[in-house]
Amino acid sequence: MATFLDDDFLLENEAARRMFQAANAMPIFDWHCHLSPKEIYENTPPVDLARLWLGGDHYKWRAMRFCGVREDCITGGVPGKEKFFALAGCLPKLIGNPLYHWCHLELRRYFGIQETLGPQTAEQVWQKSLRAIQNGGFTPQELIQTSGVVALCTTDDPAERLDYHKALQMQALPFRVLPAFRPDKALAIEQEGFLPWLEQLAALCGHSIGSFEALTHSLLERMDAFDALGCRASDHGYGYIPFAPAPAEAIEAGFRARLRGEALRCDQAEQYRYALLQALAAGYAKRGWVMELHIGALRNNSAAMLRRLGPDCGCDSIDDAPLARPLSRFLNALEERGTLPKTILFNLNPKDSAVLVALLGNFQGGEPAGKLQYGPAWWFLDHIDGMRTHLRTLGNLGALGVFIGMATDSRSFLSYPRHEYFRRIFCGFCGDLVERGLYPYDAAALEQLARDVALRNAAHYFGL
Amino acid sequence: MATFLDDDFLLENEAARRMFQAANAMPIFDWHCHLSPKEIYENTPPVDLARLWLGGDHYKWRAMRFCGVREDCITGGVPGKEKFFALAGCLPKLIGNPLYHWCHLELRRYFGIQETLGPQTAEQVWQKSLRAIQNGGFTPQELIQTSGVVALCTTDDPAERLDYHKALQMQALPFRVLPAFRPDKALAIEQEGFLPWLEQLAALCGHSIGSFEALTHSLLERMDAFDALGCRASDHGYGYIPFAPAPAEAIEAGFRARLRGEALRCDQAEQYRYALLQALAAGYAKRGWVMELHIGALRNNSAAMLRRLGPDCGCDSIDDAPLARPLSRFLNALEERGTLPKTILFNLNPKDSAVLVALLGNFQGGEPAGKLQYGPAWWFLDHIDGMRTHLRTLGNLGALGVFIGMATDSRSFLSYPRHEYFRRIFCGFCGDLVERGLYPYDAAALEQLARDVALRNAAHYFGL
Amino acid sequence: MATFLDDDFLLENEAARRMFQAANAMPIFDWHCHLSPKEIYENTPPVDLARLWLGGDHYKWRAMRFCGVREDCITGGVPGKEKFFALAGCLPKLIGNPLYHWCHLELRRYFGIQETLGPQTAEQVWQKSLRAIQNGGFTPQELIQTSGVVALCTTDDPAERLDYHKALQMQALPFRVLPAFRPDKALAIEQEGFLPWLEQLAALCGHSIGSFEALTHSLLERMDAFDALGCRASDHGYGYIPFAPAPAEAIEAGFRARLRGEALRCDQAEQYRYALLQALAAGYAKRGWVMELHIGALRNNSAAMLRRLGPDCGCDSIDDAPLARPLSRFLNALEERGTLPKTILFNLNPKDSAVLVALLGNFQGGEPAGKLQYGPAWWFLDHIDGMRTHLRTLGNLGALGVFIGMATDSRSFLSYPRHEYFRRIFCGFCGDLVERGLYPYDAAALEQLARDVALRNAAHYFGL
Repeated sequence: MATFLDDDFLLENEAARRMFQAANAMPIFDWHCHLSPKEIYENTPPVDLARLWLGGDHYKWRAMRFCGVREDCITGGVPGKEKFFALAGCLPKLIGNPLYHWCHLELRRYFGIQETLGPQTAEQVWQKSLRAIQNGGFTPQELIQTSGVVALCTTDDPAERLDYHKALQMQALPFRVLPAFRPDKALAIEQEGFLPWLEQLAALCGHSIGSFEALTHSLLERMDAFDALGCRASDHGYGYIPFAPAPAEAIEAGFRARLRGEALRCDQAEQYRYALLQALAAGYAKRGWVMELHIGALRNNSAAMLRRLGPDCGCDSIDDAPLARPLSRFLNALEERGTLPKTILFNLNPKDSAVLVALLGNFQGGEPAGKLQYGPAWWFLDHIDGMRTHLRTLGNLGALGVFIGMATDSRSFLSYPRHEYFRRIFCGFCGDLVERGLYPYDAAALEQLARDVALRNAAHYFGL
Repeated sequence: MATFLDDDFLLENEAARRMFQAANAMPIFDWHCHLSPKEIYENTPPVDLARLWLGGDHYKWRAMRFCGVREDCITGGVPGKEKFFALAGCLPKLIGNPLYHWCHLELRRYFGIQETLGPQTAEQVWQKSLRAIQNGGFTPQELIQTSGVVALCTTDDPAERLDYHKALQMQALPFRVLPAFRPDKALAIEQEGFLPWLEQLAALCGHSIGSFEALTHSLLERMDAFDALGCRASDHGYGYIPFAPAPAEAIEAGFRARLRGEALRCDQAEQYRYALLQALAAGYAKRGWVMELHIGALRNNSAAMLRRLGPDCGCDSIDDAPLARPLSRFLNALEERGTLPKTILFNLNPKDSAVLVALLGNFQGGEPAGKLQYGPAWWFLDHIDGMRTHLRTLGNLGALGVFIGMATDSRSFLSYPRHEYFRRIFCGFCGDLVERGLYPYDAAALEQLARDVALRNAAHYFGL
Repeated sequence: MATFLDDDFLLENEAARRMFQAANAMPIFDWHCHLSPKEIYENTPPVDLARLWLGGDHYKWRAMRFCGVREDCITGGVPGKEKFFALAGCLPKLIGNPLYHWCHLELRRYFGIQETLGPQTAEQVWQKSLRAIQNGGFTPQELIQTSGVVALCTTDDPAERLDYHKALQMQALPFRVLPAFRPDKALAIEQEGFLPWLEQLAALCGHSIGSFEALTHSLLERMDAFDALGCRASDHGYGYIPFAPAPAEAIEAGFRARLRGEALRCDQAEQYRYALLQALAAGYAKRGWVMELHIGALRNNSAAMLRRLGPDCGCDSIDDAPLARPLSRFLNALEERGTLPKTILFNLNPKDSAVLVALLGNFQGGEPAGKLQYGPAWWFLDHIDGMRTHLRTLGNLGALGVFIGMATDSRSFLSYPRHEYFRRIFCGFCGDLVERGLYPYDAAALEQLARDVALRNAAHYFGL
């Protein structure tokens, strides 16, 4: 019987352990996350573990609600310690949940706390964590550095000034903080916030945006500004990928109607989104950027919780619409115009994994290897089973050796052990193939796989 | 190599065996089944094993058809012994099928027969089973009692008088038989039987039902009658959950048109169903009942078999329509009105398991823990792989420790070993996590998990 | 640790090894493949391994593109040896891919080459393979014979004359080559090639085809010609199965409009296809043929590659439309008319496996056992995980013992080790059940299962 979370955690044989030694020696490039450049810049030490863990982590909020905890002990006004105890009371019930591993990995790696967290040990863990925080080393920059991170990409609105990014680049930090271009608000034409956002963008660009053409032009301008700060990627949070080509005049007419405050029909909004995304993709391709597409979220399901806490409060889940045909046509349209950028598809619905990996294979070839990537197991799939399914699917239908590996996608400065978690799972997965005689025990080949997937593929892919 | 069906069946390590000891000591609460209260009351001993096994079990019928057995040896007029022999001939081909385990568990637990059933042993098993039945102990009440059942919930039409339930409650039985409220016929407005059913309900309530409002009122009356007999749950067999809000007047108009014998349009029927289900849910919430929703069956696929044998003859299968969006809106509408009852979603399509567990997480919180449950692996998923996937999904995306566990969903008095089967699978699943170092070997925590999922969570959830 | 590809490859225990001995002794009946009867007849020895492996295998093409190889080193004009080296460079990255096993199995079984293929060994493997080919034994007929094949079914257009089939039947070959009836072009009414194809068929039949009725009649004539040459099966490559009944006059009108060069509406094309497929199925049923339906491909996704290389160039992937309802009605319509033939469903989307196996169960019964079959794990599912899922699904929801087993579906004369691969996986799957105590270690029963699934079920099913 393996001991919980010991050195060989998730490494069940010699080949796996050998691979992990190679992977673990690599630094971390966290190419997609939701850290705040402002917080990195301000670099304020945290108050306590409750704030670090429960201040914004909707994974933990959901788990606590599932266990029957009342909302005021989760996101409400009770003291942090009480929230921490409520979480500790839930933990033993979270057998099989990645949170169980994440929490304990973080306690061990950052706080040196070996205890299993539960109702009996909550007080002890709380006190130890308080002391550790008081001893220092827990500012954002310290955490990033001690985690072995050499570079990370945040997520930024094109209408933002990027002042904190500029300020960070003036500092002599031992890691790089790069912006990523996330124009979700540009695509959300039917939402209330669209016109104010447009004004913000216009003000930043210094000219009015009275046409779809002007919008496209402004966004390309902003790409240049992002590019100058080292941006290597864009990012899109999309329920699904539309295929809705329409004449340029129809797009212009719809856009101008929206400017006049009119509501668009559903198909007009789709056509707008399709046209804009095609134009943006051309801009990414030209700059050698990566286009990241996050597909399959069904957001803000509880109207009550949206009113109470806003978006990203743990009330999102998984959509299940068919997606193969429009996505195929969307990618083909880009290929036809010679504007298909490097592309990463993130998928939230496990039913779609084989569909997507098979689809990517239709548009591959040439540099870089794995030009179209199936992004790491994401959000509701970011657990051992999800990752293994992901690796199996990539292995069966693609080429596992060119996979760009893990990104935390996280809002927390404590989440880098998820790279360790992923590396262990990847090495365990490959080691298991070797153990069962499905791949030769060729140490050099295995170590190369480990290093490539841990860092090198991503570094090459993003042109770091 | 493990011996077939030995004491450690499905328990591959020490942690699993320890958990099972705790789980196995718990009595059974079978909170959803299709047993007949009439048969329980009449308590007639069975004729033979053919009648017990092949009298109504469409699982076995399907398996025999798959193996090429002719219909007259399955549901036709040949003698019971011949049917039993036909089944025995199929068994060796059912490697990997849960029937293989269910049959042998039942032979061992109820008949003390250790033989492996197959063509060579059919005669011997037949004779031994006949002797056992003649020795007694096989009446419905005896079987329920010796199986360790403390309570069970049947499935009852609101238009039924519940006479057998009343009679059973007058007896001093060592177990409780509770009704459950299944208004499928109230929702099936387009079917031929709707109007006669309505008359039956009206007669029982003692007043006419000339409006949608009167129907709702009558069903709430019936809820009170069910509640007085200890009912704790409703149940709905639904292909999918509609989201089709419409003005009250439109619902009334549609209902009255139907009363006049007119056919409703498809969207009218949907609106009716949506409105009625929302009204019923409010009634369940008010009474603290559990709302069970069985989603995803595609019924009566063979018109020929429907004519020959009627519904529930083994010609149902799995639907595959997308379901995330309407279901999310349906639950949100209930939450908005403050009428979201405790809810169990039963799912028949494996592609939907992650979608549903993630969706439930959007509406959780407060008492009881796991207010929205992902019901046990059901029907076509009721096997080792289906249960493990179920536990994995709940573990990864929810909180396994608050799961209410197993219900047989069965029409047979011999099916209680399915609780043992589930408990072994659950303990095996958790034990495997411990064995691989993914959860600590904390005997107290594991035994608590075992007892909670075997009985306590369900007892607390249903307010037993 | 198991040694890569040793004698016990995929056989992890005694029961599995025992079963494989029985399975491996059986000859091969490859009941569905895409070999060219012309090539079998002409029987030309190959030039080199590059031609054998990369001349037409879109599996390898895709894998190489995924690894970033440029198209001219895959399907372009560079010398064969250079292409072979490009493939060798990719192989180490294909950990977990079935190609990795197929390539090495073929090197060992046909060439006696034990080396692991990779960049370091490419030259050595190339030279050894050249020598082996020069030593002889690599003509199509030799490869078929030495692979232990007793019969194979090709895939033939009804408008073909079958001259090579006739010629082959005049030879005293130690194996049978049978045609199979694939009327895809008859169903593709909206494609450009439809009218020329119709003329070809008319010319072959010796009368004009001016009506839908005449077309049906011509195809039935061709069935008789195929039947005379030993044809036992038809085959259909379909995205999905339509259910679109329409009056005979509407079908006729649509067909005649098409003859006049008019474009059909989408629903007209569907109605045509439905009507024709129903008529064809009746013809198959009458002749005792098997109807094979390949469901779920999304073809020719890259317009650029279609222009460059034509269809079947590795730019196909998996569709994800819902399919349960139309398919159920389609099969029911055949059952209602008494014209439901033996039917094999091939499935490409893993999300549909449970749906399809459950659906088949609605129409089973009588001879032959498993009249409706869930065809072997196909194309994007033709790998260890896909096959295991397939076996698990069949085991859980059907009757594994009546499964007709493997077909290569291949265009290569080197692909017969895929039968060995399948047999190992099947025996490993069953052996694992025995090892875990889920099926008794009954050697006779297990060996019978092995022989049945390796050959006997298929031979009986196709009436060989």
